[in-house]
Amino acid sequence: MISSPATVSLAQLQAGLGDRLQAVREEIRRLIQADFPLIADVNAHLLQMQGKMFRPTLVFLVHEAAGVEDRRVTQLAAVVELIHLATLVHDDSVDHSVLRRGMPTINALFSHQVSVIMGDYLYSRAVIQLVRLGDLEPLGVLSRITNEMTVGEMRQLLAHDRLKFTEEEYDLLIRAKTASLLSGAAEVGAIRAAPEVRRAMARFGDYLGMAFQIVDDLLDFTEDQTVTGKPSGLDLREHKVTLPLIYTLPRMSEAQRARVVLLMDTPEPPDDLIAAVVADVADLGGLAAARARAQLLVAQAEGELAVLPPSPARERLRASLTYVLERRS
Amino acid sequence: MISSPATVSLAQLQAGLGDRLQAVREEIRRLIQADFPLIADVNAHLLQMQGKMFRPTLVFLVHEAAGVEDRRVTQLAAVVELIHLATLVHDDSVDHSVLRRGMPTINALFSHQVSVIMGDYLYSRAVIQLVRLGDLEPLGVLSRITNEMTVGEMRQLLAHDRLKFTEEEYDLLIRAKTASLLSGAAEVGAIRAAPEVRRAMARFGDYLGMAFQIVDDLLDFTEDQTVTGKPSGLDLREHKVTLPLIYTLPRMSEAQRARVVLLMDTPEPPDDLIAAVVADVADLGGLAAARARAQLLVAQAEGELAVLPPSPARERLRASLTYVLERRS
Repeated sequence: MISSPATVSLAQLQAGLGDRLQAVREEIRRLIQADFPLIADVNAHLLQMQGKMFRPTLVFLVHEAAGVEDRRVTQLAAVVELIHLATLVHDDSVDHSVLRRGMPTINALFSHQVSVIMGDYLYSRAVIQLVRLGDLEPLGVLSRITNEMTVGEMRQLLAHDRLKFTEEEYDLLIRAKTASLLSGAAEVGAIRAAPEVRRAMARFGDYLGMAFQIVDDLLDFTEDQTVTGKPSGLDLREHKVTLPLIYTLPRMSEAQRARVVLLMDTPEPPDDLIAAVVADVADLGGLAAARARAQLLVAQAEGELAVLPPSPARERLRASLTYVLERRS
Repeated sequence: MISSPATVSLAQLQAGLGDRLQAVREEIRRLIQADFPLIADVNAHLLQMQGKMFRPTLVFLVHEAAGVEDRRVTQLAAVVELIHLATLVHDDSVDHSVLRRGMPTINALFSHQVSVIMGDYLYSRAVIQLVRLGDLEPLGVLSRITNEMTVGEMRQLLAHDRLKFTEEEYDLLIRAKTASLLSGAAEVGAIRAAPEVRRAMARFGDYLGMAFQIVDDLLDFTEDQTVTGKPSGLDLREHKVTLPLIYTLPRMSEAQRARVVLLMDTPEPPDDLIAAVVADVADLGGLAAARARAQLLVAQAEGELAVLPPSPARERLRASLTYVLERRS
């Protein structure tokens, strides 16, 4: 159990991995390289907006902790991040998002059409590279996961009667949308390990990923744009119901609930309406409850680490859970 | 050389293949099957709009003509058709097309968002199935081709100065957009054959595919909606420059050329303007020249068949070239 987590920074998690993460960046650049001018332009933008490299970090840490050397680990880490990039491009297009990591999205800067094609371009490059690595195992994991992610996207799209959205449906959604690829990253890191280690790492990534998304959804309530790189209260603005609100709804007064209904029925809800709902969710304990759920998931993830022998890498994986819980952006 | 092609119907090409094509349809149904209601709805629509199964037919004919038995041929044919389906869904979304095979497109019937996600869903199911078949070879061919197709889509998007669009650029476009997957179908049919047979079949599919697209572009000039299932003159309406116009432009008078410029500058060109340009292209020999180019490609494709031993299947492949040239829809 993580009783009183000290803050862990991403830099601490990635200490000593700088060269390997740089190699991943170079590898991604190489994998997506194109002669065609428009694709090259989009690539340049994508490489600039590259994120925290959390998934490659996970691949490396699991790989080291599992103790089974795999020469392809850098390439695998790059492919996982590339698949992540491909899904972001399509997700932003589907969600009509305009900002990602504080920078304009591909659909905003280029067009919806370019986003659709670029997502396909990036994903097919990832598959080509996996074929080149000559091993069907990672391809099996990552193609299954990519498919799960599309079902998650569809699930998100179809959340019709938003105020009846249950915790169970939310779990299915965040598992497909976020946890699946983090689970895939952890599993791919352990792809050469014993089956029980590989399965435990897949579950570790799944729990960690669900906690990751819950914290993401919490940050949408608590942090502003200068920290997260996207407008705060964006989920509510876009009528997305996440765990803090799901927990709060049954405890709301009629007046408070009516305010949520109004927000969901207003195409572009005003800032003060969003702020009022955010305050209600905080006052009624929705944030605390969601945080407790994330802590539970982190404890479940930590339990899976028992399959690994003690090592500095295993402790780093444990620290990654604290990072996931405590991160501010 | 095909000197005076008798008309060959699709039914003739597919004679005796009925059961196998039905098995491909069943296999596709199985591959895309989903519990999730919205995906199941889209699937039902996609299965209804299923096309001529020309690509699976090609896989079967090449497979038989190459004479190297491959137990997975039905599954491979299904995956090729599934990849075709996935690309159609994204293409229609990118092109904002509303009709396909006389039926509403996914983007028209559902939404743009559903199309993007469904294309990803279908494609990742195809990859999963290829992994299941346990052979990296077809996966290598089909992932490379999918990537080429995205570059083709981008090329189409970027055709800025349309009246300067050259035959060379047109060739690059139709090779990526259409010929690549037909080449892939032929190559996958011969995937167990000797390398020189496999390469010859890839080239056969490439030539055939280019001819196929040129004929498609010709039909846009010559046939109406009742035959092709899409509005006639649609390419001009959408400001797409294809081979007949490319051949005609240098021979046009100033007045005729000005009419083309006007059409390209008019967001929604009126029917009489489109009809006038269509008439000019026909009068100045653009249709005949494009048809001659298609005939040349068909002759090149036929040349590649020499690598195969004489057989009824080889003659059927020869007949498929006549079908490609003579088809009306």
